[in-house]
Amino acid sequence: MDWKRNAALKNLRALRPLVQCLTNAVTVNDVANIILACGASPVMAVDIREMEDFVSLAQAVLVNIGTLDETSEHAAEAALACAARLARPVVLDPVGVGAGKYRTEMVKRWLDKWPVTVIRANASEIRALHENAVTTKGVDAADADAVNAETLPDRTRMAADVATKYHCVVAMSGAWDVITDGSQSLVCRRGVPMMSRITGTGCMLGGLTAAFVATRPAQPLQAAYDATEFLCLCGEEAARKTDAIHGGTASFRNFLLDAVSLA
Amino acid sequence: MDWKRNAALKNLRALRPLVQCLTNAVTVNDVANIILACGASPVMAVDIREMEDFVSLAQAVLVNIGTLDETSEHAAEAALACAARLARPVVLDPVGVGAGKYRTEMVKRWLDKWPVTVIRANASEIRALHENAVTTKGVDAADADAVNAETLPDRTRMAADVATKYHCVVAMSGAWDVITDGSQSLVCRRGVPMMSRITGTGCMLGGLTAAFVATRPAQPLQAAYDATEFLCLCGEEAARKTDAIHGGTASFRNFLLDAVSLA
Amino acid sequence: MDWKRNAALKNLRALRPLVQCLTNAVTVNDVANIILACGASPVMAVDIREMEDFVSLAQAVLVNIGTLDETSEHAAEAALACAARLARPVVLDPVGVGAGKYRTEMVKRWLDKWPVTVIRANASEIRALHENAVTTKGVDAADADAVNAETLPDRTRMAADVATKYHCVVAMSGAWDVITDGSQSLVCRRGVPMMSRITGTGCMLGGLTAAFVATRPAQPLQAAYDATEFLCLCGEEAARKTDAIHGGTASFRNFLLDAVSLA
Repeated sequence: MDWKRNAALKNLRALRPLVQCLTNAVTVNDVANIILACGASPVMAVDIREMEDFVSLAQAVLVNIGTLDETSEHAAEAALACAARLARPVVLDPVGVGAGKYRTEMVKRWLDKWPVTVIRANASEIRALHENAVTTKGVDAADADAVNAETLPDRTRMAADVATKYHCVVAMSGAWDVITDGSQSLVCRRGVPMMSRITGTGCMLGGLTAAFVATRPAQPLQAAYDATEFLCLCGEEAARKTDAIHGGTASFRNFLLDAVSLA
Repeated sequence: MDWKRNAALKNLRALRPLVQCLTNAVTVNDVANIILACGASPVMAVDIREMEDFVSLAQAVLVNIGTLDETSEHAAEAALACAARLARPVVLDPVGVGAGKYRTEMVKRWLDKWPVTVIRANASEIRALHENAVTTKGVDAADADAVNAETLPDRTRMAADVATKYHCVVAMSGAWDVITDGSQSLVCRRGVPMMSRITGTGCMLGGLTAAFVATRPAQPLQAAYDATEFLCLCGEEAARKTDAIHGGTASFRNFLLDAVSLA
Repeated sequence: MDWKRNAALKNLRALRPLVQCLTNAVTVNDVANIILACGASPVMAVDIREMEDFVSLAQAVLVNIGTLDETSEHAAEAALACAARLARPVVLDPVGVGAGKYRTEMVKRWLDKWPVTVIRANASEIRALHENAVTTKGVDAADADAVNAETLPDRTRMAADVATKYHCVVAMSGAWDVITDGSQSLVCRRGVPMMSRITGTGCMLGGLTAAFVATRPAQPLQAAYDATEFLCLCGEEAARKTDAIHGGTASFRNFLLDAVSLA
C-alpha cells in the first residue's frame, strides 16, 4: 500500500506514542493489537485510582463506552477530567448512543462538561447527538442513516453541526466516512462492506484515531482523516486477501490487522 | 455446505434479529463475531441500568455466567426479569454450574424464578442441574459424562428430566448433542473433537442458539437443534480446512467463524 | 519442533491440570486458548465468592494484574490467601508495575504477605520490584531495560535479587529471558522480536508457566524455564510461517497458538 510511504504513519512509528484506552470488553484485544500494529503502545488500565498516572504518561486517551457500567463510567469521568487538566487529546467513541437512554444522557453530560478532541461514531450515533434521535438498531448504524451520494449533504451538515456544538472533530464512519471540524469537511470513500461484518472495526478505528491524534494533537481533523483512510485502505487490502483464499469474516479480521502491521 | 440453502439460516439473515448478550469476558469477542457472522446483530450491554432498554430492543437474550461476579449477576437478574415481562426468549448458558457452589445455587434460584427458553450446557453441567452432582473438572465436561452410543439413553433421560423440570428446551453439547423439550428428543452426531480444544465453542453455540431462537421463538426445540447442527457442520468444514494447511487450534477457530459467515 | 518429544509437555498433556486464572480483560481469550492448546484446562472465574472453590479444584493459580480494579484486586487477594492455605503454586504477572503507583504498592504488599511461586514479568517490571524504579513506558519494557549480551550480568543479578527477596522464581522475559531462583539462573536466548508486537505474549507466557508449574510444583525453576523455552520455540515456528505467507501480526498470533497446539 501507498501508506508505506505515508508521512503520518512514519511519524507515528518514530514517536511510538502511548495511548491510554478505556474501551469495551468485546473488542479490547483488537484495539490493543491494532494500536501495537500501527506502531503505538497501548495501555488499557481501567481502575479509577490509576487514571491520573496513566493519562499523565499517555499522549492520547481513548474512551469507548461499548460495555459501560457504573465502575467504568466513573473511571472514564476521571480520565476525561484528567485529560482536560493535562491537555491530553481525547477520542470519544460513543458506542450505542441513542440506543440506550442511560448512555445517551451520559455522553451528553460528558460533552457539556469536558473537552473532546474527536468523536468517532457511526451515523446513527451522530444523529442521536444531533437531534435526540432514538435508534432501534442496537449498536450498528440503522440502514436509514447510511451515508451515500444522495444523503451526503444532509449527513455532512449533521456531523458538522455536532462538531460545531462540541468544538471538536467529528469522524463519522460508514460506507462513506465524513470527517469534519464544523467548518472544513473531508470525505473518505474508501473501505469495504466487510468492515461492518466483524465486531470491532469501529472500536479499532477509535484506537487508531487516538494513536494518530497523539502524534498530531494540533491537527485533529487531518489526524482523524488519516486514521480513517488508513484503516479503509487496510480494509481493501484485507478484502482482496480474503477473497483470494475464499475466506470469511475471521480471515478478514486477521488480514485487516496484518495489513495495519505491514503498512 | 448444504446450509447455504437452509431455510432457517435464510430466515435469520432476512430478519437480522438483535440479540442482547450478557456473556463472559473470555469469549465475548467470539460470541459477538459469530452472531454477526450468522447474520444477526449483537448487543453486549452489561449495565443493569440499560437492561430494560436493550432487552426491549432485542428479539432474544443470552445469559452466559462464565465470569459472573456480583455486578453481572444483578444485571443478569434484571435481564431475566425484563425478558420474562416482555416475553423475550432467553438462552441460558450455565458455564461451570456444579463446579462452583455459588454459581450452582444462583442458577437454580434463577430457574425457579424466571422462565428460560433454552438451557445450553455440557453434560456435566446438565448433570449438576439434574442431581446436584458436583464436578471436579472446572468448566469442561468430565470424561465420565461423555455422551456416546452406550450412555445416550441415560444422558437423554437426564436432559429430558431437566427440560421437564424447568419447562424449557435443553441443548446438551458433547461429542453427541442431545436437544430435548422433555417429550421429544433430537440427537445430533455431527461435529469434530477440535471444537472442544478451543475456548468458546460452547459460548458461541449459546450465541448462535439465541440468534436462531430469536427468529423462531415458538419452535425453540427446532431452533436449538438447527443452531447445534449448523455449528457442528461448520466445525467439520473448519476441521477439513485446518487439516489441509496442517493448522492448529487458532486456525480452527478462524475457519469455524469463516464457515459460519460463508454458509 | 523437538518439543513433540519433550517430557515436560508430555507430562502436562497426560495430567491435564486445571489452572485457575485471574487475568486481564485484554488477553483473557488468548490465555484461555494457550492453556487449552498446551493441554491443560483453564478456569477464568473472577468472583471473590468463588475463589475458594476454584482454587481448591485447580493445580495452579495465575494472577495477572493488567486490568486490575477494586473488584478484581479483592478477588486476587482471596485467591492468593486461599492458594497459600492450600499450598497451590501461584504465578504472578505484575503487568505495568512501576508504571502506576497503585499497582506498584499493591504488588509489593501482596509479595510481603503471600507466597508466590513464580513472578513472570518484563525487565522494567522486575526493575520496579527491585529498586522502586518508575518507568514512563506503560506496560511494555523500556528500551533502557533490554536484556542483551552487555546487560545480562547486571539484569541477572537484579532478577536474582528479586527472587531471593521474595523466595520465589523470577522469569524475566525479553529478547533474552532470564529465569532464576536467586542462586541458579538460566538464560533462554530463543524467540523472535515479533513476540513483542502483539498484545498478550507475556500474558500467554504467564498462563503457560502456570500450566507447567502445575505439573511440577516442586521444580518451579525448571518448569518456568520449560514454559519460556517452549513459547520461544513456538514463536520461532510462528515467525517462519508468518514470513512464508508475508503475514503480519495477526497471522503471527494465530501461528503462535497453532504451534503450541501442534507441538
